[in-house]
Amino acid sequence: MPVGTLANVKTVTPTQLKDCQAEMVLANTYHLHLQPGEDVVAEAGGLHKFMNWDGPILTDSGGFQVFSLSEIRSISEEGVKFRSPREGNMINLTPEKSIQIQNQLGADVIMAFDECAPYPATYEAVKLAGQRTTRWLERCIKAHDRQDVQALFGIIQGGVYLDLRQQSARELIQFDLPGYAIGGVSVGEPPELIEKIVKAITPLLPNNKPRYLMGVGTYKEMAQAVASGIDLFDCVIPTRLARHSVALVKGDRWNLKNQKFKRDYEKLDQDCPCYACQNFSRAYLSHLVRSQEILGYTLLSIHNITELIRFTQQMRQAIIENRFVEQFGHYLTSENFTSK
Amino acid sequence: MPVGTLANVKTVTPTQLKDCQAEMVLANTYHLHLQPGEDVVAEAGGLHKFMNWDGPILTDSGGFQVFSLSEIRSISEEGVKFRSPREGNMINLTPEKSIQIQNQLGADVIMAFDECAPYPATYEAVKLAGQRTTRWLERCIKAHDRQDVQALFGIIQGGVYLDLRQQSARELIQFDLPGYAIGGVSVGEPPELIEKIVKAITPLLPNNKPRYLMGVGTYKEMAQAVASGIDLFDCVIPTRLARHSVALVKGDRWNLKNQKFKRDYEKLDQDCPCYACQNFSRAYLSHLVRSQEILGYTLLSIHNITELIRFTQQMRQAIIENRFVEQFGHYLTSENFTSK
Repeated sequence: MPVGTLANVKTVTPTQLKDCQAEMVLANTYHLHLQPGEDVVAEAGGLHKFMNWDGPILTDSGGFQVFSLSEIRSISEEGVKFRSPREGNMINLTPEKSIQIQNQLGADVIMAFDECAPYPATYEAVKLAGQRTTRWLERCIKAHDRQDVQALFGIIQGGVYLDLRQQSARELIQFDLPGYAIGGVSVGEPPELIEKIVKAITPLLPNNKPRYLMGVGTYKEMAQAVASGIDLFDCVIPTRLARHSVALVKGDRWNLKNQKFKRDYEKLDQDCPCYACQNFSRAYLSHLVRSQEILGYTLLSIHNITELIRFTQQMRQAIIENRFVEQFGHYLTSENFTSK
Repeated sequence: MPVGTLANVKTVTPTQLKDCQAEMVLANTYHLHLQPGEDVVAEAGGLHKFMNWDGPILTDSGGFQVFSLSEIRSISEEGVKFRSPREGNMINLTPEKSIQIQNQLGADVIMAFDECAPYPATYEAVKLAGQRTTRWLERCIKAHDRQDVQALFGIIQGGVYLDLRQQSARELIQFDLPGYAIGGVSVGEPPELIEKIVKAITPLLPNNKPRYLMGVGTYKEMAQAVASGIDLFDCVIPTRLARHSVALVKGDRWNLKNQKFKRDYEKLDQDCPCYACQNFSRAYLSHLVRSQEILGYTLLSIHNITELIRFTQQMRQAIIENRFVEQFGHYLTSENFTSK
């Protein structure tokens, strides 16, 4: 899922996003609550109509943003109080409030409001956050008014402590939800820990429900996670890198500002079907980003989104044709390899 | 002509620009000389290929920018010396150099290198600049290596002094050029003077050559100029206003940041065929520009370009059907009206 925080994937139109073969996009409850407000989105007919995206949409719960971005004033069993960075007023985000906002936004998949422990955090702190996340999930389920049209996914917490992760997973699957997510990763822990967490949890999750690894990732992180059974990702990498002049090309990162691209008249990636690669040279893209022209960021976003979606399509096809390890084995460490 | 200073019309792709029904675009010699350099554009196969625009392109000569943007070190009969705002090195722009750069850039129409007097300036200073512009035109013609594929337009100077304007026009038409431009307007003079200048010059220009009013303009300025026989315009208004959250709608300027658009779920302009108007509400566009999302500027650019091109198309059709005054008379003062 490309990330469309404020009801748009930064610098690209919905038509361009379709051309990237994007299907599902993510939007952020926290940001949309602050601007334009869920009531505006609801009055517009919901997120799909508001942002003109007829594919599936997922909204996160705001938990991650509240715990990582906000000036938090208090965390209690009730919820989280924080000061709006936009208007300065106090906002009280609770499981019920998060679900109510998400019901108004109207995404196809909504996420439970969780307590996301920071990294690093003590075993005891992470344990308490995980237990609270389970209690909050119960409240989310009760508050969820539109179960017939919006699927509520639970979020597994537990930090880098594998037994806490497994405990969280076991508690959540009791609720027989339509999908499960692994949250609280990509919060600063070493990347190799993500793989360990994923491998500890996925065997416990039902095979017939989507498994979503939140905030991931890179080629390697995604390949490793898919090897362990993950189905769904979201990540700002393709669009954020683009805005930093970086193209994802065949597994590498190229900074188009680099002098070597100034007179490179080849297409960005001859094998890529995207609009940027089909129509423009590396020299032109380099010129645009050197000139800080917005069009450069748009074209690189189109390419990077296309590139990562193609990567996931190729993984899916390799699984169907039973050659995943053959094609993507180089992304897996020897440890994964044997355990797979 | 939408303005594509650095070989791109800011925030829009060539495909989007085609959808706006844009035909000819302008690019700036001064800016492209500084970045990426005309040699890079030439090596890429020329501007059309570099920026992926198969419609006609016009490059200005750099004169206007050198006189208005640069830290000028000296102006002489030879040319203009200035310090590059990018690299800090001294650059010597002469009529020969400007044409050589434009020959390398490879636009369909190139412009003579002129001395653009500031506003205000004394009669004597403007007279000297106009005479020098004529001498420089002779050197431009001699330096022009690609007369078979690039049309060189002369630029009429003379400031706000109508007799100097007419003298400049009379001198230039002696060269039997493929087109003539009126330069040195939109440099700070009162807008009503532009119309006076245009009306003083156009009767002197050949009927069978394009007449180009540089750096204009607004609905009213364009309608008045067309009434006097102008064929071609360039202006940053549609894209610059877009980046300031302003939409051109039916002759008005709407700032989408305005509170009244926050819950306005109508299309921007129901009668406009552009991508922005067909697919998004005013509330959504307002949300994007309030959030400073680049997509908002892209969508408003698409709309504003479409709007002004439709305006010129409507003027053309009205002329063909002999009802220009009937349809556009309200843009003309009563003074124009009788003199027309």
